[in-house]
Amino acid sequence: MKRWLIENGIFAELSMERQTFEGWMSIEGGYIAASGEGEAPPEIRDAAEEIVNGKGLLFLPGLINTHGHAAMSLLRGLADDLVLQDWLENHMWPMEAKFTGDDVYWGTSLAAAEMILSGTTTFVDMYDHMDKVAEVASQAGLRATLTRGVIGLCPPDVQTAKLNDAIQFAKEWQGAADGRIQVMMSPHAPYTCPPDYIERIVAAAHELDLPLHTHMSETAAEVALNVKQYGARPVEHLDKLGFFSRPSLVAHAVHLNDEEIALLAERRVAVSHNPVSNLKLASGVARVPDLLRAGVTVSLGTDSAASNNNLDLFEEIRLAALLHKGVSGDPTAVPAAEALRMGTLYGARSIGLGDAIGSLRPGFKADITAVSIDKPHFFPRTDYISHLVYAASGADVAHVWVDGRQILRGRELLTLDVGRIRYEAQRCFERLRG
Amino acid sequence: MKRWLIENGIFAELSMERQTFEGWMSIEGGYIAASGEGEAPPEIRDAAEEIVNGKGLLFLPGLINTHGHAAMSLLRGLADDLVLQDWLENHMWPMEAKFTGDDVYWGTSLAAAEMILSGTTTFVDMYDHMDKVAEVASQAGLRATLTRGVIGLCPPDVQTAKLNDAIQFAKEWQGAADGRIQVMMSPHAPYTCPPDYIERIVAAAHELDLPLHTHMSETAAEVALNVKQYGARPVEHLDKLGFFSRPSLVAHAVHLNDEEIALLAERRVAVSHNPVSNLKLASGVARVPDLLRAGVTVSLGTDSAASNNNLDLFEEIRLAALLHKGVSGDPTAVPAAEALRMGTLYGARSIGLGDAIGSLRPGFKADITAVSIDKPHFFPRTDYISHLVYAASGADVAHVWVDGRQILRGRELLTLDVGRIRYEAQRCFERLRG
Repeated sequence: MKRWLIENGIFAELSMERQTFEGWMSIEGGYIAASGEGEAPPEIRDAAEEIVNGKGLLFLPGLINTHGHAAMSLLRGLADDLVLQDWLENHMWPMEAKFTGDDVYWGTSLAAAEMILSGTTTFVDMYDHMDKVAEVASQAGLRATLTRGVIGLCPPDVQTAKLNDAIQFAKEWQGAADGRIQVMMSPHAPYTCPPDYIERIVAAAHELDLPLHTHMSETAAEVALNVKQYGARPVEHLDKLGFFSRPSLVAHAVHLNDEEIALLAERRVAVSHNPVSNLKLASGVARVPDLLRAGVTVSLGTDSAASNNNLDLFEEIRLAALLHKGVSGDPTAVPAAEALRMGTLYGARSIGLGDAIGSLRPGFKADITAVSIDKPHFFPRTDYISHLVYAASGADVAHVWVDGRQILRGRELLTLDVGRIRYEAQRCFERLRG
Repeated sequence: MKRWLIENGIFAELSMERQTFEGWMSIEGGYIAASGEGEAPPEIRDAAEEIVNGKGLLFLPGLINTHGHAAMSLLRGLADDLVLQDWLENHMWPMEAKFTGDDVYWGTSLAAAEMILSGTTTFVDMYDHMDKVAEVASQAGLRATLTRGVIGLCPPDVQTAKLNDAIQFAKEWQGAADGRIQVMMSPHAPYTCPPDYIERIVAAAHELDLPLHTHMSETAAEVALNVKQYGARPVEHLDKLGFFSRPSLVAHAVHLNDEEIALLAERRVAVSHNPVSNLKLASGVARVPDLLRAGVTVSLGTDSAASNNNLDLFEEIRLAALLHKGVSGDPTAVPAAEALRMGTLYGARSIGLGDAIGSLRPGFKADITAVSIDKPHFFPRTDYISHLVYAASGADVAHVWVDGRQILRGRELLTLDVGRIRYEAQRCFERLRG
């Protein structure tokens, strides 16, 4: 791993000590080695193997997308503006039933290309054929927290086979790709997994010492069903099943009452907020200001490109900052800096990497996104954090490093063949459509 | 004006007859002359002075931004996440009080660059020093509907001077720049203009045969104040003052009751919906599905970059499609095609140009935006309208024509000096900040 020096840059450090500074940053052995204001010391400059002139660039922690299904990028735009059950039952599930490992490989490759091009360096992914997802993450040079999502509405032997598949995947891939790949265990959702199956998955997570991930309380209907079936709302239900005895990340958490928010905070459960997907599927608006106030770690996810329909986390960051103001009537809700932390530092914390990524501090891993700020929408230069949150888009990303390795240079993908990916993604889609 | 031929392109015609087609389009004398599927006829090919290879490009009607204050781009990021009155009184107004014609010129130039780079071809602008705004629109090659917004909370002689300024501007600029510039008359808002002043402005609009524009019912507080001061909500109030006897465009219209929606429909008042600004300032969520259902023409505006903080109309289009689903709980609310029409055709109708722009039909003016669709987020190619609305951003725009004249080529601005604009905008801001 190369010794890099970035000089003449503006850095959004996002640490407790400082938000931004102008100066330099050195990278060594995949980590941020040192940084400072003004000019780099001569000895650091001399030791650098590659020097990046950061003029006109704003460097921020690589974005962290904490919920998605990358392979579903193959279904982008296939079916929009439909009622959830019609969308799922008549469009998504019939197509997904035909997905092979090849489809997952190319769909995930398409997603990986899009994520890198929009500044994401770490993604959480819940799907099937997870070895293919891990392969893509490994090749792409991305950091990933991966999980085989299991649906338990099937005979016991199929349940067991799926769980074994998830365990097998965990054993094979946990810590792979120089530690960039981590694994979680995932019942798909309380409404798609019987309680005893969830308990078995929790037991496996304990045995493997892995965190848990699930969809939770995405729709009001799902919460009502949980109450009807199990006599408890999803948070209480999962708590009773021991789910929160492991480090947990729940996606969506749109429909929560005050007691549930308090319990999530008490159990230190992290929430992945997916504002675009929640709006598009008309699921509702999560109580993010209340969650943050209660001390819950709230991060951001795109969900899949089938319900978004892109993987640009800048959009989630902006919408997190905008939506909750408009809906609550409080223009101070989710300020810009907080929204940016949701897309970086809080994302890191929600997957157990709060001491390693999500901030540009020395000693942290060199997962860095550089945004080109010479465009009109970054002028005048008043407040860089505001510009990143309210004016920027993924298309402004110029360079990306993960673990100190550059994977995007001047918007050129260094680890993926985008022409091939486009071709194969289209081919896969056409075969699936049949 | 050159004779152009675009071939091998995908066209989002957005007419009643067809949404999209693959083929060719010819431009002559500033108008779309002809179009068709497949290959262009040889005689059209021979007659073309310049041929554009449309491969990998999606052509759509130039976007129409129906409410904004371009010069306020100078205040982008100056003050975010504040309560409205604090924002206005302690940050916006003190800075705006210092604005000179020079500030308006460079602030508007900055906005013009950003709008062209994100595919907008027509913008509505309400501000002061409007001759400077008109100058910029003229130089930039943009189409613009401009209006001197007057605030009437001042002595009668100042009121009269402002009104005369608006009338003078109208006489000088209506139809200028080869007809690209049109003028409206604008009391700033019912809460900033006494009733008799609004009546004088309406009378002037009748005399000059011009449409009217105003801010209306942006906040709940403003509606309550209107009821308290005048015993009527803003729609009834403006109706009584004769406002809607002219073709009218009202911005925001967030807080409406059923009777007001019915009256707006009856009076054929157009509404400029500004979803990003309404969220950011915590004004609330406009009743767009109800307005559309009632037959009101609803278009889209960015408002200024001080409350947005960019001028990318693709973002308003997407948010219009997303927000109302999430808030209403109906995933079929504001479908993709409808949101795209709000940013194009309905924008044209709302400024009296529904027969001239907003659709790529032969006989319409050649105001065209070309989006580069070779990027990963446009794959697989399932539904071009969906991709434009849910996946695209202004950064995907490659070329722009207005009146058949190219003003953006491969993201290079052909009419504006972006380096100079960046420099001058920064200079203006620093002087204003003092």
